Amino acid sequence: MEKTYTNALPLTRTSSEKQETICIFGTGDFGRSLGCKMLQCGYSVVFGSRNPQMSSLLPNGAEVLSYAEAAGRSDIIILTIHREHYDFLTELVEVLNEKVLVDVSNNLKINQYPESNAEYLAQLVPGAQVVKAFNTISAWALQSGVMDANRQVFICGNDNKAKQKVVDIVHNLGLTPLDQGSLMAANEIENYPLQLFPMWRLPFYLSAALGLFFFFYCVLRDVIYPYVNEKQDNTFRLAISIPNRVFPITALILLALVYFPGVMAAILQLYRGTKYHRFPAWLDHWLLCRKQLGLVALGFAFLHVIYTLVIPIRYYVRWISRNITIAQIMNKKENPFITSTAWLSDSYVSLGILGFFLFVLLGITSLPSVSNTVNWREFRFVQSKLGYLTLILCTAHTLVYGGKRFLSPSSLRWGLPSAYVLALILPCMVLVIKFILIIPCIDKALTRIRQGWERNSKYSKSALNGRSDI
Amino acid sequence: MEKTYTNALPLTRTSSEKQETICIFGTGDFGRSLGCKMLQCGYSVVFGSRNPQMSSLLPNGAEVLSYAEAAGRSDIIILTIHREHYDFLTELVEVLNEKVLVDVSNNLKINQYPESNAEYLAQLVPGAQVVKAFNTISAWALQSGVMDANRQVFICGNDNKAKQKVVDIVHNLGLTPLDQGSLMAANEIENYPLQLFPMWRLPFYLSAALGLFFFFYCVLRDVIYPYVNEKQDNTFRLAISIPNRVFPITALILLALVYFPGVMAAILQLYRGTKYHRFPAWLDHWLLCRKQLGLVALGFAFLHVIYTLVIPIRYYVRWISRNITIAQIMNKKENPFITSTAWLSDSYVSLGILGFFLFVLLGITSLPSVSNTVNWREFRFVQSKLGYLTLILCTAHTLVYGGKRFLSPSSLRWGLPSAYVLALILPCMVLVIKFILIIPCIDKALTRIRQGWERNSKYSKSALNGRSDI
Amino acid sequence: MEKTYTNALPLTRTSSEKQETICIFGTGDFGRSLGCKMLQCGYSVVFGSRNPQMSSLLPNGAEVLSYAEAAGRSDIIILTIHREHYDFLTELVEVLNEKVLVDVSNNLKINQYPESNAEYLAQLVPGAQVVKAFNTISAWALQSGVMDANRQVFICGNDNKAKQKVVDIVHNLGLTPLDQGSLMAANEIENYPLQLFPMWRLPFYLSAALGLFFFFYCVLRDVIYPYVNEKQDNTFRLAISIPNRVFPITALILLALVYFPGVMAAILQLYRGTKYHRFPAWLDHWLLCRKQLGLVALGFAFLHVIYTLVIPIRYYVRWISRNITIAQIMNKKENPFITSTAWLSDSYVSLGILGFFLFVLLGITSLPSVSNTVNWREFRFVQSKLGYLTLILCTAHTLVYGGKRFLSPSSLRWGLPSAYVLALILPCMVLVIKFILIIPCIDKALTRIRQGWERNSKYSKSALNGRSDI
Repeated sequence: MEKTYTNALPLTRTSSEKQETICIFGTGDFGRSLGCKMLQCGYSVVFGSRNPQMSSLLPNGAEVLSYAEAAGRSDIIILTIHREHYDFLTELVEVLNEKVLVDVSNNLKINQYPESNAEYLAQLVPGAQVVKAFNTISAWALQSGVMDANRQVFICGNDNKAKQKVVDIVHNLGLTPLDQGSLMAANEIENYPLQLFPMWRLPFYLSAALGLFFFFYCVLRDVIYPYVNEKQDNTFRLAISIPNRVFPITALILLALVYFPGVMAAILQLYRGTKYHRFPAWLDHWLLCRKQLGLVALGFAFLHVIYTLVIPIRYYVRWISRNITIAQIMNKKENPFITSTAWLSDSYVSLGILGFFLFVLLGITSLPSVSNTVNWREFRFVQSKLGYLTLILCTAHTLVYGGKRFLSPSSLRWGLPSAYVLALILPCMVLVIKFILIIPCIDKALTRIRQGWERNSKYSKSALNGRSDI
Repeated sequence: MEKTYTNALPLTRTSSEKQETICIFGTGDFGRSLGCKMLQCGYSVVFGSRNPQMSSLLPNGAEVLSYAEAAGRSDIIILTIHREHYDFLTELVEVLNEKVLVDVSNNLKINQYPESNAEYLAQLVPGAQVVKAFNTISAWALQSGVMDANRQVFICGNDNKAKQKVVDIVHNLGLTPLDQGSLMAANEIENYPLQLFPMWRLPFYLSAALGLFFFFYCVLRDVIYPYVNEKQDNTFRLAISIPNRVFPITALILLALVYFPGVMAAILQLYRGTKYHRFPAWLDHWLLCRKQLGLVALGFAFLHVIYTLVIPIRYYVRWISRNITIAQIMNKKENPFITSTAWLSDSYVSLGILGFFLFVLLGITSLPSVSNTVNWREFRFVQSKLGYLTLILCTAHTLVYGGKRFLSPSSLRWGLPSAYVLALILPCMVLVIKFILIIPCIDKALTRIRQGWERNSKYSKSALNGRSDI
Repeated sequence: MEKTYTNALPLTRTSSEKQETICIFGTGDFGRSLGCKMLQCGYSVVFGSRNPQMSSLLPNGAEVLSYAEAAGRSDIIILTIHREHYDFLTELVEVLNEKVLVDVSNNLKINQYPESNAEYLAQLVPGAQVVKAFNTISAWALQSGVMDANRQVFICGNDNKAKQKVVDIVHNLGLTPLDQGSLMAANEIENYPLQLFPMWRLPFYLSAALGLFFFFYCVLRDVIYPYVNEKQDNTFRLAISIPNRVFPITALILLALVYFPGVMAAILQLYRGTKYHRFPAWLDHWLLCRKQLGLVALGFAFLHVIYTLVIPIRYYVRWISRNITIAQIMNKKENPFITSTAWLSDSYVSLGILGFFLFVLLGITSLPSVSNTVNWREFRFVQSKLGYLTLILCTAHTLVYGGKRFLSPSSLRWGLPSAYVLALILPCMVLVIKFILIIPCIDKALTRIRQGWERNSKYSKSALNGRSDI
């Protein structure tokens, strides 16, 4: 439930004690919202403005003065002004000397300027202690108190005392300060709210490429081939049949790609004989994207499940099923029950369901609030043990689905095997390598390397036993 | 995983340092739990009680004294006593002078008394600094350490120093303090734990009204009409067929109602030529309820999906399907495969699945822990771009479902069109208005207004370019 | 979206102010990661090492000295060394006197040593103030800034000032400190990261036992019985049919077991006439496991739903359905539509869907981030009211499923009733007791007891009205 009542909270100060005064330069939406929130949390607020008389929308209890007057009232000045208009600060250099200057600005594009706004500000007003903060918080969130989105305030600055003052304010406003180090971090903090799912980009492009490739592959085999060979119009397959081949294939390959970088990293560590060499950058990025890759795979698996469950509702399937029954009656052919077919059909479905179930479990445990409540042993157990079990079940599901038709020449069209055969290559490879890696002697070597042992280290005489540090 | 071991933690104080002493008036469940938690966190605790000798259940390490004696030991007194029994405090006015008095009480009903308990307390003991806090925390949560529910402690009070002391205690107990301003906020803080999903009320009543209306509408067309005209007993349709018409219709209309207030607000801003006028209260409330509306719609969509997937399992459907096959054989009628029907059937199902998939995605991103990890640009992208795509897919799903029967006179019964035709009105309207609003010239005007430009402002000469404030 | 950029943040200290210096003993992965993070957050870091010259991988800006020299630089020493190597500290006893010594170590097994590592450390260096902290944080999480897993730092120690210093550091690193009391809590804190889902153990074993029992029961009735009596090979039923009997049965019984301890506790309180006696330990544990029991039940219900929805896709079901149609044509038998069967079939499916829908709702509200946003009244409403409604719907679903066959002698095989009949015993029992408990007179007595009234209390004259404490 959202709290929305902080919104219009009437404020009275009955006590005569001295409150800390914060100065805000700029009376835009964000400045006003921030001022209003600060007043609620017991600060005294004074606005600095070009036109101090134009103050109709400001929160009750706040004063509006000229920039210079306002700056004189407080040690902390929050600058809610676009970077393009920072020039006027050069006239205030003396007033701002020794003050904490908080830069909350954002740009319109990533890396719009050579230096970050906060660093630019520090150059303009060299005497002030510039701290970057609040740029990820929206005026709307402050005003409504809803805070559905981010409560995290990234903070950076070169002066620790100045930073600490800002951290205290952030705490008092009920937000979560996150210290990001020196002002050189400002660039990344300013880019943060302009990012659009950067960690999802690789999984997205990868799945788009895989999906498109297999879509056209299936179109070739299932639509163009029958049209060329039998003049059959199979275009209606584009709506359900072909997506329902592309989705599971993409899901399975993506799931294998989640576990591929892990086995590659293990091989690399075994080959190098140490864990103290950095992985190549692309492998590092891949390792960091695994969660996103897995979630995209789960999305495709979810689609596959629903596309499969609607099969009996489809006109085409009902038509086919009716015609089979009619043909059987017409031909008076016996239709004996084949137990092995029942076994194959049922176990392939069952494997798929169990795989999907574990996959959903993995997805749920990757929700931030769930993964926050498990310890590392539990997290690794779920993401690694259950993850591999999911991969095994899904690969087995695909293998059993193929059944006897698997690689049989009759299923080739223009020499192309069924799409699911291609889909099995990577998962099988990952599983085989993983099974090799958990052979005791290899596993032992890998464990030693991961505990810090080095094959060619000059310190290796002290290795393992001497490794006393955590 | 819940931590449950804080529960019975044995406490030993080996160091001789002076600890801060907190006084708790009242030895009920909450008082004892709070005292126990405070002892664990390094405070010294002294209880004040009417019968100090009746102290068998108090935590080890806590002292029990008379009210006056206990109050003399600490600067902070936490009052875990029902408001109805505050009278005895009048005798302690002198002892309580200058002390911080923390009111944790709740009432049984919303707005039970003319003034909040905390304000009443401040009147009774005018010399004390009253702070409202802890009323949203349960004794059980404190005791078990489970803290599955709320960790947030709303705090208000007129004296900032007193408030800060309470904030520090809340922090030390591992809870999250949220400053709500002056003691006038106590009323809302006291009402908070008595609320039952206030933001869900509008969506709930709306969906109940929509659901009931369409239920009776469908009963009229599908049960009463066939009964009157053909004496056919269709009552069994009440269990699945009719719910499976009502659910998708309600879901679609609710989804349209999520995006309706947004386009209305845009029209209002365009019409007024400024964003600085408040929206009418009902529109404000509607805008704040959008998430809840969307989640209720998702619930109905989920039910629709499962009700649809069970169709082939139903006795009625299997009976019908068998009879169609038999009739076809009996009549020796040909049953040619119609590609256009296959296309329609498959694409309507496919659109629905994709719409549902995006809808589930929207639902997942509205989980607090997920929406906390995205920045505003990402949040808006998901909730607005993906949201409209969902609305488009679901509307298209319904349109294609209608297919050729759409508005055909043969589908009228007693002059009433199919229910889904009515369901399409609002979504189509919202989509049409939205498409008009994103026409470049209109979109540009709206963007300028949202950046602070005003059509009739006396300051408009400074508009846009002059808008230097964030 | 994960923040990954804290990773390689360049650090410059332009200001000349004095920073707090932290000393870290040990230069392993965790020590280096912690040091790097501390440097980012504005601390000055000095490492203590056996081989100060072996410092190639240490973060820029950190010094490496011998243990004694490093310890001399700071009041706080973080010990990132395995317990097995603590002996060297005995030589440093004088340098470490009066210092805050932070133990971050973990063991390989639960209760590996008689005393916790922190207590052992306190014995080794009696002059130092030992604080346990950071043991639940991983080096990888610190380094990558991903922090998907735990942000909580459990802290304990006998000296409050020392503890407070560590709490401040934890805060500054953007982590969440949780004070667990005196050093006697160290044992539990050290066991925490070694636990593997302790609260899930009872639900897991319980569901495994139930599942296995009903699996063999169903195999006996559905596979062995037909084989013995009719030489029929039903083994293919092991893949889907039998799991789809075992899953719903286990789900229903587990759901009943969620609500069983609650009614038992109520009966116990009524019988004892007080709430001030502790429940037996097994009942306490059971009460704490209810959420996990419910989630396991939801997992089985989810599997049941998908196993049911794939029914029409199965080869066996399609074969049966075709044969029924053919038999009907061959025998030229009429197949009238039976409305009562349609009603039964549809309402049993409908009840199941609604029950599952509510069950999913319960599951979603038990996500930590969702349950954190509701107040206690809302939480109880969902988990109790909606929970019982779910149990009623699911029990009704099973009852209607049985329909006329319920307990009919013809469904007995070797005297054994259908498995679902056994499954109904516990849920029906729980519901009957619950209905008795909410009879007004009993409910009133229970409410009085829960408000603190005691039947045989010597203070009972003051009961209820006299209960002024919260």
